[in-house]
Amino acid sequence: MPVMPEQPTDRAALRRANLAWVIRVLREQGGLSRAQLAVLSGLSKATVSTLVAELTSRRLVRAGGVAAGGQGRPGQIVELDTDGVRGVGLEVGVDHLAATSVDTAGNVVADRQVPFDVLSAGVERTIDKLAEIAGKELADVVGAYPAGITVSVPGLVDTGRGVVRLAPRLRWREVPLADGLAGRLGFPLDRISVDNDANLSATAEFEAGGMRGTADLVYVTGDFGIGAGVIAGGRLVRGSIGYAGEVGHMSMDPMGPQCSCGRRGCWETQVGLAALFHALTAPGDPVSDPHRPIEERMALIRSRAEHGDQRTLGALHQIGAALGVGVSIVVNVLSPAVVVLGGYFAALPDWLIEPARIEVAARAVVAEAATVRVVGSELGFTAARTGGALAALSRVFDDPTQVPERSEKTEAPA
Amino acid sequence: MPVMPEQPTDRAALRRANLAWVIRVLREQGGLSRAQLAVLSGLSKATVSTLVAELTSRRLVRAGGVAAGGQGRPGQIVELDTDGVRGVGLEVGVDHLAATSVDTAGNVVADRQVPFDVLSAGVERTIDKLAEIAGKELADVVGAYPAGITVSVPGLVDTGRGVVRLAPRLRWREVPLADGLAGRLGFPLDRISVDNDANLSATAEFEAGGMRGTADLVYVTGDFGIGAGVIAGGRLVRGSIGYAGEVGHMSMDPMGPQCSCGRRGCWETQVGLAALFHALTAPGDPVSDPHRPIEERMALIRSRAEHGDQRTLGALHQIGAALGVGVSIVVNVLSPAVVVLGGYFAALPDWLIEPARIEVAARAVVAEAATVRVVGSELGFTAARTGGALAALSRVFDDPTQVPERSEKTEAPA
Repeated sequence: MPVMPEQPTDRAALRRANLAWVIRVLREQGGLSRAQLAVLSGLSKATVSTLVAELTSRRLVRAGGVAAGGQGRPGQIVELDTDGVRGVGLEVGVDHLAATSVDTAGNVVADRQVPFDVLSAGVERTIDKLAEIAGKELADVVGAYPAGITVSVPGLVDTGRGVVRLAPRLRWREVPLADGLAGRLGFPLDRISVDNDANLSATAEFEAGGMRGTADLVYVTGDFGIGAGVIAGGRLVRGSIGYAGEVGHMSMDPMGPQCSCGRRGCWETQVGLAALFHALTAPGDPVSDPHRPIEERMALIRSRAEHGDQRTLGALHQIGAALGVGVSIVVNVLSPAVVVLGGYFAALPDWLIEPARIEVAARAVVAEAATVRVVGSELGFTAARTGGALAALSRVFDDPTQVPERSEKTEAPA
Repeated sequence: MPVMPEQPTDRAALRRANLAWVIRVLREQGGLSRAQLAVLSGLSKATVSTLVAELTSRRLVRAGGVAAGGQGRPGQIVELDTDGVRGVGLEVGVDHLAATSVDTAGNVVADRQVPFDVLSAGVERTIDKLAEIAGKELADVVGAYPAGITVSVPGLVDTGRGVVRLAPRLRWREVPLADGLAGRLGFPLDRISVDNDANLSATAEFEAGGMRGTADLVYVTGDFGIGAGVIAGGRLVRGSIGYAGEVGHMSMDPMGPQCSCGRRGCWETQVGLAALFHALTAPGDPVSDPHRPIEERMALIRSRAEHGDQRTLGALHQIGAALGVGVSIVVNVLSPAVVVLGGYFAALPDWLIEPARIEVAARAVVAEAATVRVVGSELGFTAARTGGALAALSRVFDDPTQVPERSEKTEAPA
């Protein structure tokens, strides 16, 4: 497959590419001297010094210690300035709203979550509340430049327009979320994005998770709805209309139970949260009480499994195996190096991820394909908003000139 | 997802990128004047003239007619030189070997296929014969520069080393095919590649098929084995160890028939050629006679279907529906704009592609996802080797300086 340059590069594009390269190398390798940067890049020391000066002025790099060893005069280390720029991720869940901010090293510097009933509040009041939370988050990062805001939504998103096309669990359809937030926050619309929760979770795993840097990685959400975020060759796969990763409605069993989509035997009917609660609880069981926090319900299930409760163990084993069958299909199509299981899957690793792993290994086309790793997410329930914050930062990593220089007038949000 | 520059660009890389850009624009838009190229690129006319001179010297572009219309002095048109460079695709099938050459416009300029029993010949004699055919193909393109050779194989390939890891239908395992060909042909090893047939067929559809240019496209082979070539965002998805697209072993029915891989209900057991022959023929039926050419057997099936033979129609309908269920899974994972069905699927379009299309539309997650197009390949059984020839050309499109200048000594194959 040819990899063609999108368009001829000019001097300004060349400069932006070189600025972005310096940031990328410092993110990957930590602090380096100008001389080391020159050697790695093939650029002259003078060019490197100019690039470093510009990045310093844009608060993306700063002077670190002094390089040890090597020949000649010891050089001043250049390192990421983690105080200058922030990415902000917001999250809309059925029962909560949340916000998180990350610095340029990918560390979370602020995080807040509030219980919120999106279904009863409706669209407008939900966006009001989300803007309020975002405003507090931006106030927390004052002094740093907010590179952008990316909102995670459990649904299908037109990312180009920042519109939520369809989010069945929120009962949202055609909601212009980016517009709504920009207006309420007085934040530039072109720095607000909206994306699907599975896509952003995959981004978070790729950029900051336990398997970060894995170029071929699939993230599977574990919730009432099941979705996947797909990274292939280091790039997020969105598909032609942005609907890639809708694995919850893969047809797994022609005689299986009825799905909310109207068909039978979709993967979601086998491994979604509803299937879990149906399989291991009787009416009145606190585990299936929707008013209890999900973490508490997971803890109850873990406790029962640890005490050898047969109904619990049987249900978990059945779901773990079905999880493995579906994951093996995704593995056959995409051949990822890693499948990260998030949400409730990650909360019950011994009982869900282990059986899934066995099933995937047994179903590998060739022995080598069995080298795919199936792991639980370490980011837990914050993966999606962390991915949002990291996605917001990527705007600056791709083009560092987006951050105003210190001398320039800062375009702060209202 | 950040799209980062791989490394800082330097002057030479910039020049190569600009040369590649000129080729790309001429391939997409046909002939253009230097002035038009300057406007499109933002480069100066002088720079464009230097680029065109270099590409002319490398026999990649040539002078065409004179530009009509526009202001000022009419300009000389620059167009692709389709005589200077060729890409060669070879193909190893169970019962045949083949070669094809394409020019820089993607037109096939030479094609040869010979019946050959790979299983009885064994590895070494097969490579001998393949080298003989490749030698004839190269002799046909003499005078043009052979950009490279890419061999299509129905199996799992280590593309980095040009080694066929596993091709069950050929009974090949760990065959160093690129090495074997380079030695026999005296052709530079670094210009010989080996790749999976589904990947190369997808490449052919993307570059030269009826749906060319579709950035999100999946090709499904219709043969005894079922495989997929996946293009996402304009790039081939190989997966972490190159085994993406192994869709034939997706688990479709836990109670289904035994598969050659040892499991039950793989997609291949439902829609592979063996399933077709099993469903619509009785013992002694010429349709299932392996000694007849596949095209002849397909013609027999078509004729029976056209005459309303109930057994044939019933079997085709059942396979078409199962084809659609599997395609819908691939669509749910990848959300392509187009699924191209090749091999025998394309030979029976009315009876297989139409039912598959209906099934896919019925299984779309949202109405918009039903906009995926399901079409038969127009490239027929030559898709894989055409893809190989195009892949071989891509080396030159990516870096036009690979082609020696006219003044340079041509490194012709022995």
